[in-house]
Amino acid sequence: MLGMFCVRVCSGLMGFRAAPRSLHSFPGITVAQIDEEVAKLLQLKAQIGGDDGKHQFVLKTAKGTRDYNPKQMAIRERVFSTIIGCFKRHGAETIDTPVFELKETLTGKYGEDSKLIYDLKDQGGELLSLRYDLTVPFARYLAMNKITNIKRYHIAKVYRRDNPAMTRGRYREFYQCDFDIAGQYDAMIPDAECLKIVHEILSELDLGDFRIKVNDRRILDGMFAVCGVPYDKFRTICSTVDKLDKMPWEDVRKEMVNEKGLSEEAADQIGEYVSLQGGMELAERLLQDQKMSLSKQACAGLSDIKLLFSYLQLFQATDKVVFDLSLARGLDYYTGIIYEAVLTQACVSTASTDAQNGAEESVSVGSVAGGGRYDGLVGMFDPKGRKVPCVGVSIGIERIFSIMEQKAEASAEKVRTTEVQVMVASAQKNLLEERLKLVSELWNAGIKAELMYKKNPKLLSQLQHCEESGIPLVAILGEQELKDGVVKLRVVASREEMRHGPNQERTHQIDVSKNWFWSF
Amino acid sequence: MLGMFCVRVCSGLMGFRAAPRSLHSFPGITVAQIDEEVAKLLQLKAQIGGDDGKHQFVLKTAKGTRDYNPKQMAIRERVFSTIIGCFKRHGAETIDTPVFELKETLTGKYGEDSKLIYDLKDQGGELLSLRYDLTVPFARYLAMNKITNIKRYHIAKVYRRDNPAMTRGRYREFYQCDFDIAGQYDAMIPDAECLKIVHEILSELDLGDFRIKVNDRRILDGMFAVCGVPYDKFRTICSTVDKLDKMPWEDVRKEMVNEKGLSEEAADQIGEYVSLQGGMELAERLLQDQKMSLSKQACAGLSDIKLLFSYLQLFQATDKVVFDLSLARGLDYYTGIIYEAVLTQACVSTASTDAQNGAEESVSVGSVAGGGRYDGLVGMFDPKGRKVPCVGVSIGIERIFSIMEQKAEASAEKVRTTEVQVMVASAQKNLLEERLKLVSELWNAGIKAELMYKKNPKLLSQLQHCEESGIPLVAILGEQELKDGVVKLRVVASREEMRHGPNQERTHQIDVSKNWFWSF
Repeated sequence: MLGMFCVRVCSGLMGFRAAPRSLHSFPGITVAQIDEEVAKLLQLKAQIGGDDGKHQFVLKTAKGTRDYNPKQMAIRERVFSTIIGCFKRHGAETIDTPVFELKETLTGKYGEDSKLIYDLKDQGGELLSLRYDLTVPFARYLAMNKITNIKRYHIAKVYRRDNPAMTRGRYREFYQCDFDIAGQYDAMIPDAECLKIVHEILSELDLGDFRIKVNDRRILDGMFAVCGVPYDKFRTICSTVDKLDKMPWEDVRKEMVNEKGLSEEAADQIGEYVSLQGGMELAERLLQDQKMSLSKQACAGLSDIKLLFSYLQLFQATDKVVFDLSLARGLDYYTGIIYEAVLTQACVSTASTDAQNGAEESVSVGSVAGGGRYDGLVGMFDPKGRKVPCVGVSIGIERIFSIMEQKAEASAEKVRTTEVQVMVASAQKNLLEERLKLVSELWNAGIKAELMYKKNPKLLSQLQHCEESGIPLVAILGEQELKDGVVKLRVVASREEMRHGPNQERTHQIDVSKNWFWSF
Repeated sequence: MLGMFCVRVCSGLMGFRAAPRSLHSFPGITVAQIDEEVAKLLQLKAQIGGDDGKHQFVLKTAKGTRDYNPKQMAIRERVFSTIIGCFKRHGAETIDTPVFELKETLTGKYGEDSKLIYDLKDQGGELLSLRYDLTVPFARYLAMNKITNIKRYHIAKVYRRDNPAMTRGRYREFYQCDFDIAGQYDAMIPDAECLKIVHEILSELDLGDFRIKVNDRRILDGMFAVCGVPYDKFRTICSTVDKLDKMPWEDVRKEMVNEKGLSEEAADQIGEYVSLQGGMELAERLLQDQKMSLSKQACAGLSDIKLLFSYLQLFQATDKVVFDLSLARGLDYYTGIIYEAVLTQACVSTASTDAQNGAEESVSVGSVAGGGRYDGLVGMFDPKGRKVPCVGVSIGIERIFSIMEQKAEASAEKVRTTEVQVMVASAQKNLLEERLKLVSELWNAGIKAELMYKKNPKLLSQLQHCEESGIPLVAILGEQELKDGVVKLRVVASREEMRHGPNQERTHQIDVSKNWFWSF
């Protein structure tokens, strides 16, 4: 019955409006029913598009993602070049892996967070998921190619169906910048280099003061053991400890006792330890600690922390590194040392612009790098379970982008989005061919140049374009210059001008050689 | 009943093998049935994993995708740097867009090829698809941000569920390098710059001789009209013409007449036109052509081809450009000029290594760049249908990678995968601390340096590492050098050595300054 209405009402919509009377002749149908059907169809029509039949697109990017405009790209390139420069200085190679992996490659690696993985639709063939981080694909790559040692960096986007908080730099599509050292080496040497790298990058990026907190999974586990935490509660208590950077101790203790069912004595003992911060001397003290020294694991971790600090001294990096027993990173696959870098200056406020998350305004800028040792992950992929020890660090680049963007907004300095050195312009009409010839000569000489794509652009609009996009030089062609076989060059900032040609005496001291162009 | 067997047989597998006799006491079950059940369970076990209960991963990347190893990355970086260098020389900005778009953004843009789009699984929320090219996201970006003119490049991966032919550089995940100029400008000026860019890039990459074929959608449509092709057959006849680079004219004619139902006369008239190739003079001749000149569209296209060639002459790029009436690119959105670059030398054979595609060995290397003018695409996204004229080019980078990789394989030149300038080594034991201190000093001075992560590496293995990875210099520490406060520097290739320190007379002419390090 609805089908018949559809035909009628649709034809009505197309202009052949049938008299209501004719509908009345259908038995058992009220006008109200007709109205309802019409409303449904109009709604359907609205969904399909406007009256002109044109489909109305929702003009947006997917939730939690963003485009980068040229200015953001310029900042992104600057940050990447600092980071890649550091990775290369430390002799790293680079690899790349596909954006999606077989679904089962990611299965069982992320614990609870697995629900945040993006799956691809089953369109026949393999079941695929977008990568969640770069560490698991790296481990898969090592096992697949039977590589037992490599020092590599990998910069690429990863995907998490998380709750986005974009103004604070939390996206569903975001970059990771990973540096990892895989191989069977002597203790703490590659680990120390990872920390040195974080130190170098954060210093170079000039984001304000920072601290690198260091701890060790074995110290945490040993501490839990000697404090009387039952073995099966290690991981869940560990994740409560992990909240100490966001919650006061009282609340953390409450969660341990009330939610996780830990005894009050155990919680209080943990409380004493996790309040400790220091350097090599703290590791030494804890090695003498009556309780802590009962755990072999803890002692192994503490000795390595000592060794680590001795290497960091040689690297002149101890000023920023602090041994912090409250650090307990979330990921399950860490087996030894763990670390996290935080910016300690309340940075121009990444949080306060985030209207929806006003409550978090007081939270510190948070972690901008993190990592640790994961000696078991590659073995999970190897058919024979052969282990490849690994240690690595991931730079939290989106947060750094956010800060750099805000710094750029705040500063007077204009971010250039092109590198054009010279604009080829004309002062009179009908000089397009001459402009095309000159710009081509400049391109062929490797000089970054452009011209306006108009036959007869106004000189003023050509000069304005230079000012807007920061082009330092204009080559101006005019009848007189062509007659004299010269080009008039103008420095945009100073308006200084000179004529330049084969037989031309220089009227200024500007040395117009190729090198001179390069200096702009 | 199977359940009971499971328990028994499983416990058997775990070592508590029950005597077969006890099973015989179950009524109505034969030994054969038991054997069958055992076989099923063993199969199940094999699927789950080996005896240790470990899951066996399928260690592979998704179909049609690949990892890039460090050597491939080094080649990739070299190619990208040439291409980006050219784009920047022409004053392009860059943007980035997310890897996935709302599904409806891609709908209706790719015609038949839409079936090749990767969809994401519906996990609640928006319906998403992986981008199929960079052009549609670019058009969406322009419409969304109301940008009416921009010159931008975008280098990123795109995704097509196509039949992969990986040794020939055809993947399901592959890079596109796009350069586009959007804006209302005077005819053929930006179009000519796109061709100049293809010319520059292919020349610089040094892939052998090439041709850039040029045609215009309006000339094709005009030609079809004057040859008597019915309007509704334009697109389908156009896609048959597109096959002329892979099929002889006889077969193309057959397809037109037999499959597409075109009259023989029309086909023969088309045959005469599509055999034509030339330069500006061909465009002039066709403007005088009795039949062709009947089409206003064709005349507009031909005049623009003339104009294009005049600009290309000023760009000194006509040597490689040919006006070819058989060029008819597939995509629907082109509205004006179209072009495609092909390598004309039978390049070391991208095909012959492809065992599965032996039949295609004789096919030429094929298209390495293509593009054209698409004045209507942005308007498809704009709520008011406002048009932004665009012209662009896409460099087919995967094919170029394949060729470069094969060239690298064939040549004696070793591809370095790191940029390390100096290896910090020791000749005796117990010098780890001194090595760490020196390498840190080098890093701090911006010099690319590394050391082996062993307490006491052998000098030989340190030197071998240098030879293998092409590190040009070794700084060798020994007791005597430490006593003298110097470092011994050795040039790996020549074995030339010198001692370098504050109070040290130079024994060689090597000038060990920071600049000297940079020169390696």
